[in-house]
Amino acid sequence: MAYQENINQAANPKAGGKEGRGITPRAEDYSRWYLDIVKEAELADHSAVRGCMVIRPNGYSIWEKMQRELDNRFKATGHVNAYFPIFIPVSFLSKEAEHVEGFAKECAVVTHYRLRRAEAGKGVEPDPASILEEPLIVRPTSETIIWSAYKEWIHSYRDLPILINQWANVVRWEMRTRLFLRTAEFLWQEGHTAHATEEEARAETYRMLEVYRDFSENVMAMPVIRGAKTAAERFAGAVESLSIEAMMQDGKALQAGTSHYLGQNFARAFDVTFQNSQGLRELVYATSWGVSTRLIGALIMTHSDDAGLILPPKLAGTQVVIVPIYKNDDEKAKVYAEIDRVAQELQAQELTVHVDRREGVLPGAKFYEWELKGIPLRIEIGPKDLEKGSLCLARRFVLEILGETEKAMRARKKMFLPRAEALAKIKPILAEMQQQLFDRALQFRNQRSRVINSLEEYEKFFKEEGGGFAWVHWAGAADEEELMAKKYQTSIRNIPLDGQAPAGAEGAGPCILTGRPSTQRVVMAESY
Amino acid sequence: MAYQENINQAANPKAGGKEGRGITPRAEDYSRWYLDIVKEAELADHSAVRGCMVIRPNGYSIWEKMQRELDNRFKATGHVNAYFPIFIPVSFLSKEAEHVEGFAKECAVVTHYRLRRAEAGKGVEPDPASILEEPLIVRPTSETIIWSAYKEWIHSYRDLPILINQWANVVRWEMRTRLFLRTAEFLWQEGHTAHATEEEARAETYRMLEVYRDFSENVMAMPVIRGAKTAAERFAGAVESLSIEAMMQDGKALQAGTSHYLGQNFARAFDVTFQNSQGLRELVYATSWGVSTRLIGALIMTHSDDAGLILPPKLAGTQVVIVPIYKNDDEKAKVYAEIDRVAQELQAQELTVHVDRREGVLPGAKFYEWELKGIPLRIEIGPKDLEKGSLCLARRFVLEILGETEKAMRARKKMFLPRAEALAKIKPILAEMQQQLFDRALQFRNQRSRVINSLEEYEKFFKEEGGGFAWVHWAGAADEEELMAKKYQTSIRNIPLDGQAPAGAEGAGPCILTGRPSTQRVVMAESY
Repeated sequence: MAYQENINQAANPKAGGKEGRGITPRAEDYSRWYLDIVKEAELADHSAVRGCMVIRPNGYSIWEKMQRELDNRFKATGHVNAYFPIFIPVSFLSKEAEHVEGFAKECAVVTHYRLRRAEAGKGVEPDPASILEEPLIVRPTSETIIWSAYKEWIHSYRDLPILINQWANVVRWEMRTRLFLRTAEFLWQEGHTAHATEEEARAETYRMLEVYRDFSENVMAMPVIRGAKTAAERFAGAVESLSIEAMMQDGKALQAGTSHYLGQNFARAFDVTFQNSQGLRELVYATSWGVSTRLIGALIMTHSDDAGLILPPKLAGTQVVIVPIYKNDDEKAKVYAEIDRVAQELQAQELTVHVDRREGVLPGAKFYEWELKGIPLRIEIGPKDLEKGSLCLARRFVLEILGETEKAMRARKKMFLPRAEALAKIKPILAEMQQQLFDRALQFRNQRSRVINSLEEYEKFFKEEGGGFAWVHWAGAADEEELMAKKYQTSIRNIPLDGQAPAGAEGAGPCILTGRPSTQRVVMAESY
Repeated sequence: MAYQENINQAANPKAGGKEGRGITPRAEDYSRWYLDIVKEAELADHSAVRGCMVIRPNGYSIWEKMQRELDNRFKATGHVNAYFPIFIPVSFLSKEAEHVEGFAKECAVVTHYRLRRAEAGKGVEPDPASILEEPLIVRPTSETIIWSAYKEWIHSYRDLPILINQWANVVRWEMRTRLFLRTAEFLWQEGHTAHATEEEARAETYRMLEVYRDFSENVMAMPVIRGAKTAAERFAGAVESLSIEAMMQDGKALQAGTSHYLGQNFARAFDVTFQNSQGLRELVYATSWGVSTRLIGALIMTHSDDAGLILPPKLAGTQVVIVPIYKNDDEKAKVYAEIDRVAQELQAQELTVHVDRREGVLPGAKFYEWELKGIPLRIEIGPKDLEKGSLCLARRFVLEILGETEKAMRARKKMFLPRAEALAKIKPILAEMQQQLFDRALQFRNQRSRVINSLEEYEKFFKEEGGGFAWVHWAGAADEEELMAKKYQTSIRNIPLDGQAPAGAEGAGPCILTGRPSTQRVVMAESY
């Protein structure tokens, strides 16, 4: 979209748009653009181990902020954290018939528990005398190991509900990996709850989906569509899978979180029963729900631009960076004295502030770097500001005004304000930026969403017009979903919950593929 | 010690001392006592996977508090968090000669990346077609994988220092496990820093030891001895290893944290050089330092008693529990109205409060349970308190007064105070309890520390008098350390840094074993 091409020129001309040192423009190569940002903003690296990533401090600080926000929400809804073993005996996987199909395929298998010296000079090798009786897999998800523990804890209805979350690493062996989006190891949280009734468990499934929506929209500034997965796309072992789906800047969908109602499947597999209040034994009802470091990929692709990363202020490890400007030692001393005062005043406002004290790096290069790294607000402080008693605030982005020149937009990013006014305005400016990011992303999603009633229109949307979210009627079977996937590289992202359909998408109609009657539209899209 | 047997009778007579339902008294079986507390306070469980534990919510909440406190200290000293892969190629282990000896022995080895269906009815098995070219181990510690990443990040002195910490799970295959103290998988943090000079790296090693001391003493209320490990006890690959050592209630030492100066060993192994400010290439200097969930075991064994867990208020997930007392619905309504007001006022003081609203459980049973679970302060609220406008505060413990009767001590645990006074006193009471725990542990350590100058006295101390920390002169070699270990089951815990020696332990003297001159005493003890 043109506005995104335009609005984000760094204040320093050197960093302007396509002349940026390291970032490939989105229009040129979207995938490259994404990886350039991950690399140049020092968010993550490939590691020496195939498919595994190193999450660098800049990337990890985003995850820490996400964790804090999510964890607070989990606790506010009555959940507690715990930790279960990373290893799962392979026999556990087989206990739930569908689960084994979903997770046995690509996982890391531990077969030995010791190394020994290999022949001289050849280092070490697995010791054949240390073969495990039963191989272990590194958890791809923890339903099985957790339900084997719940069996010990649950006896009566008084032991229910169990509302536990776990922050952990998981491993799913992936052949084609992409930093944050798809890696062999990733970090996530997985909630695993146990309930006395179906009603309560189903309510929990929806409650956590709402927690994810709230977090995505109000913290990540990323609008999402809440809905149910089709049977074909359900979690292996679930009765119902819900998801939130976000739109990336290339129009593709990204599944940002899932919440599953597992019925009594895992309770049956692990024989977990409880005595209900009438004294009868019953199988326990379950849910599980999770989000992962994939969200960092989603965050990048929702907001960033050709100048680099854009972070919503609520997830920025540093919200304000202060760059000193001076020509000699006398100026330097005065400027730093003011910077220390300003930094202190901002910290007193509970803002996170970084002062860029590096010597031998020009201010322009610093501006460029902090824009690349997505710091929401920059304060420049030099001798002129001291004289005037003012501060220069530079936003990481401003929203496009139609017909505006690049120069005008660049000017609009900077505000010169009297000192006291500037300090009082920083929090409101950050709040405004947070809101603008959401509004812009929502506007983008709306522009790229289409209510579609024929396969011709559908084909045109995806093959000629760039695609996006297609709201279509669907009443097909699993093999027909596959057919659509093969023909258009699209899938049903979810069957949206009520109240989210755009104008013209309400009501019943004929399935776009089969013509069979459908009561409600689904969202189809290409996806990550 | 007698005072610990005496002081901690629960307010409810049912829960008194040796009549406690589930806790074996320390005097009867110390190991059993420890495991009883872990189990009865629901801190951790054995899992279905040999040697791996489940950390239950009560145990995990202690870890979360520890993490928050440590993480704040790491950040205050300039560190940032990151995340590195869980897998390490086996060849990496061999790159540092000593490191491979230390860690190749007992580790989980991943050899396959896929499972397949076994013969009908036999579940799944590793797919022979998925053998990894190079086996991977699950990290026992991350020096190697991290230094392989640092090689990519470090080019010039401007890239230094790197001050990174990681919160992670690690695996060391253990044959004999004990919940929290020794398990195959455990949680920890590992700092890995890179520096341009030896001086700076050595200073970092000591700085982090001091962070650990501060945390142990001021948060865990657990006094520690800071010192250097002997060559025989050094971390595999370190030039110098420092530790903090705490004394448990059975007089044994527990290594509570370590900080290592690694010199240029890992830089050499992974060829990590930088251009110094004179333009010359040099190998980078390294440190690493860590503490683990083992600290939860240390916490239990430092403070708890025969009535169950005792938590320092700074690590209690719930600091105050409120138990309602009523006989009928009318009383119940009034009592809960007051409880809601009290809870709100305490939350406004930023205290964590839990109201025990369970029906069908008698107040006495609740008192017992919350004492068992280590909640520092209990408030009982009943109709009489409403009438009098007072609150009943019951501490988890009070310190012994010599010659006092059990009844008097039990009475002293409860305070009936006018409402406003009670609410104002809770924070000071918790602070006092925090300090009392430290003082008591320090007093205990002092009582069980001895300056020893002959092997006869040494033998008597450990074989007849229960043992503890023996301050002895030492100038032996590694094989002589082993000899002491075999003969007395003791080891040199560390060579204490200056300023910690008890009276009479200063100055030079002859080695207790060899008679060779020694300039400084070491601490010898049995250990976990």
